[in-house]
Amino acid sequence: MALAQKEISVSEFFAKNRHLLGFDNKQKALLTTIKEAVDNSLDACEEAGILPEISIEIHQLEEDRFKIMVEDNGPGIVKAQIQNIFGKLLYGSKFHSRRQSRGQQGIGISAALLYGQMTTGKGAVITSKTKRGKAHHIKLQMDSRKNKPVITSDDELKEWHLKQGTRFELELEATYKRGLRSVDDYIKQTAVANPHCTINYLAPGSEEIRVYERAVKKIPDRPDEIKPHPYGVELGELIRMLRETNSRWLIGFLQEDFCRVGKKKAQEIIKATKLNERTYPSRVAREEADALYRAIQKTKISAPPTNCLSPIGENRITEGLMKECDADFYAVSTRPPSVYRGNPFQIEVGIAWSKPGDDLLEVSNKGKITKKRKKRGTTDTEDLLGNADEPVRILRFANRVPLLSQQAGCGFTKSVMQTAWKNYGLTQSKGALPVGSAAILIHMASVWVPFTSEAKEAIASYPEILKEVKLALQEAGRKLGVHIRKGKKVASEFQKRTYIEQYLPHVGIGLQEILGISNEERENLVEKLRTSMESTRKI
Amino acid sequence: MALAQKEISVSEFFAKNRHLLGFDNKQKALLTTIKEAVDNSLDACEEAGILPEISIEIHQLEEDRFKIMVEDNGPGIVKAQIQNIFGKLLYGSKFHSRRQSRGQQGIGISAALLYGQMTTGKGAVITSKTKRGKAHHIKLQMDSRKNKPVITSDDELKEWHLKQGTRFELELEATYKRGLRSVDDYIKQTAVANPHCTINYLAPGSEEIRVYERAVKKIPDRPDEIKPHPYGVELGELIRMLRETNSRWLIGFLQEDFCRVGKKKAQEIIKATKLNERTYPSRVAREEADALYRAIQKTKISAPPTNCLSPIGENRITEGLMKECDADFYAVSTRPPSVYRGNPFQIEVGIAWSKPGDDLLEVSNKGKITKKRKKRGTTDTEDLLGNADEPVRILRFANRVPLLSQQAGCGFTKSVMQTAWKNYGLTQSKGALPVGSAAILIHMASVWVPFTSEAKEAIASYPEILKEVKLALQEAGRKLGVHIRKGKKVASEFQKRTYIEQYLPHVGIGLQEILGISNEERENLVEKLRTSMESTRKI
Repeated sequence: MALAQKEISVSEFFAKNRHLLGFDNKQKALLTTIKEAVDNSLDACEEAGILPEISIEIHQLEEDRFKIMVEDNGPGIVKAQIQNIFGKLLYGSKFHSRRQSRGQQGIGISAALLYGQMTTGKGAVITSKTKRGKAHHIKLQMDSRKNKPVITSDDELKEWHLKQGTRFELELEATYKRGLRSVDDYIKQTAVANPHCTINYLAPGSEEIRVYERAVKKIPDRPDEIKPHPYGVELGELIRMLRETNSRWLIGFLQEDFCRVGKKKAQEIIKATKLNERTYPSRVAREEADALYRAIQKTKISAPPTNCLSPIGENRITEGLMKECDADFYAVSTRPPSVYRGNPFQIEVGIAWSKPGDDLLEVSNKGKITKKRKKRGTTDTEDLLGNADEPVRILRFANRVPLLSQQAGCGFTKSVMQTAWKNYGLTQSKGALPVGSAAILIHMASVWVPFTSEAKEAIASYPEILKEVKLALQEAGRKLGVHIRKGKKVASEFQKRTYIEQYLPHVGIGLQEILGISNEERENLVEKLRTSMESTRKI
Repeated sequence: MALAQKEISVSEFFAKNRHLLGFDNKQKALLTTIKEAVDNSLDACEEAGILPEISIEIHQLEEDRFKIMVEDNGPGIVKAQIQNIFGKLLYGSKFHSRRQSRGQQGIGISAALLYGQMTTGKGAVITSKTKRGKAHHIKLQMDSRKNKPVITSDDELKEWHLKQGTRFELELEATYKRGLRSVDDYIKQTAVANPHCTINYLAPGSEEIRVYERAVKKIPDRPDEIKPHPYGVELGELIRMLRETNSRWLIGFLQEDFCRVGKKKAQEIIKATKLNERTYPSRVAREEADALYRAIQKTKISAPPTNCLSPIGENRITEGLMKECDADFYAVSTRPPSVYRGNPFQIEVGIAWSKPGDDLLEVSNKGKITKKRKKRGTTDTEDLLGNADEPVRILRFANRVPLLSQQAGCGFTKSVMQTAWKNYGLTQSKGALPVGSAAILIHMASVWVPFTSEAKEAIASYPEILKEVKLALQEAGRKLGVHIRKGKKVASEFQKRTYIEQYLPHVGIGLQEILGISNEERENLVEKLRTSMESTRKI
């Protein structure tokens, strides 16, 4: 047994568990690859203060083999970094910083390369040029036993059509489908949540480049990086920070290494322990650190700053929904920033709702009620609202990135289910999504989004997040409720009448048997009954 | 930007994303820690052919601080391996083998240590003794910046109460709750799925050790380890295998490194390419490997052997359900083994169902129908069946390990939702779980279970797996349907009558107005109508 024990490299682990990275099947593989490349491009442009212009091309080579290309006008990548960024899992600049960005793990794009290599035997081709540097054209593979990049070819281009930017090309086994949760859907939703971005998209088999022109010429303010908040640091991390700090004294450590701790707060914290201001941080023992940790929890420290967050904004959410849904009513709500595990975050919600339509219930000549549905775009992605008798559609976003998979396992979905939508005029079974021709958009902006897997498809159910989402849903829901109730009275009256329609013929037949009357007399009687019940009793 | 790029250690990654490992909150942290330790203990015993006897103790130290202890009578661990097994993420014997076992990633128990250390600053204490060796008592921490174990103390015990075995002790921040998804629940379900195992459990605050005595004295047959099946190997992996094989010639490679490939099959595969039997595997170029890959897909190769699987068995599933649920009817079904991505697996399903009870519908004197519910153990975990108007309970198992969290995101749940339960007598809304006083047990046995996250809480939605689960559900569902339909006819008759009760008084009032009759006459008329409609028309 002892002999068989061995180390597992992170690339071997993810190759075997590739569904963790969003490569469960061929269709998702295509979506995930495009998504990771585009997210990286958008992050790179925004960090450098450049209005993003992204080009995406997907070419079908064989039945289940595609070649994709994603190109941006970002700052480019210096040559020495290219191999690690694209060819090594768990490598990047965003993991250790507390700043709102799309990428955060240093896994995504290398995982795409690994998947491409696993399924086609070929690596990726990266072309990148910084403003002052040459354009480098690098063919890259990954040694998946060791999680190490392997450069198979490395050229300098004499000319390139971009002054600066990065292009990522990959062959992979994939399937392309239109409709919900497709690449098309992702690109459209990305355009909605990133109106400052121009996207040129060439779909497989298409001759024409679809252009999503930017609607806004201003880059969102670059979110600030923040230091950890004392409440969000656990004892073990505190001990590590004490060991690794550059501060000489404890008081300096508390002030320098955390946000929201000034001199006074630091003194207050230290006073509650047996330590003193000039204790050397590296000499604090475990028991002393424990006391320090408890002192921090007991001290009142203000919430972390929120200028590190970049929400989409109510106007843009409404505009986005209007562009995508042909709805009768829109409601938006934005929560004030909040905190989970020391990480600031903010929730925004938008609801688009459409009237079920007058043709909802129809009574046949035989007294039968049939539901006639106002069919809405199920195959057409142009209209995101579903049918009136189907669960509402949920549009989930994290740091402006649309989340298309794992809806059932997402904390956002849980919050929607736990909200009492009956109060707001939608029907809802216990523990289920509300039903109606509606779409609910939920956006979380945060310096660290807790995803349920490395594929970044769903939000983990931290209670603080669920609560904020619920409050935002309730706020928007109340607005919706007021609107729906006005229309509901009429519909309810209509429905009662249909019941009369349904039961009166049976009563007529029963009366005919008892009173021994003719068919004609029966029909007259039923007619009289109907008039009487409808007009007099108003049931 | 280039400067900020850096490597992220796997332990840093998981410390920040600890919800991926099942440490989302304090309650789950306790459950996950116990689960990982018990799973390891059971695996170790079974691999060594020992009937497992596990002791679990949980002691509450402070409001949210606990000390846990898990001890087994397994073969023990040689000293050199202890530090890596418990103090290094992605280290173990099970990842690289294709054998059915509970653990497979080499993450779980080290993650528990990391969590304990993060929240209390303390590491774990491991005591282990092999049959011939000394008992070692080791205090272990993890350098989370480097994912490396750090031994803080190392003793040899002169005496220990066990001849062989391993004991794991850890302090951690946690919360203990009873009921669904609790440690108690996990232990009980583990006993159900592992009747060959004795578990002694001391719950927090309890004075008494609860003993789950083994019901069977035979260890399940040790599942065989298998070689990869040709269909389950992707092009990239094939290329790597060609490079790393010990076989000299291609024909030997195909026969030796895969299961189900004999000489004839190997020749058939090679014939379809431009290679020959004596090609050196390491010299096969990418294009040639691609041709070889396609040749494999086109060759008819029998499914992988299934003696590598150890299902629970129909009798044990029925017994287990009977022990846990007070149901009126049980149905079990076992699918033949199947394959996804080259991995053999097998699905077993059991259903326990209870009649809603005669008091389901009640008609008041005023003609109103009220539902009177037969309340069932919602707080009492002794009875797993829910109420008749609530979604059925789903009991999920993977390689005999109960899965308690992430039900909504689990492929098993998806399969249950996609099954048309109305056909089998349960009510069900579109896209929802069926409703009824019932429990559905689903077990997957496989050499590699695809979990949706490292926490191993839910099954990824591979189509082959969903399909098998659905077929098993349908088979058991049909048996249930036959049983329910017998009882249903009576109930349906009863319900129709209640509608008559409800509407006739209104009709009476209508008729009174039209015909101008007295109250007494009206009541007589209604009575006649009722008799007539019930007896003559049988509606």
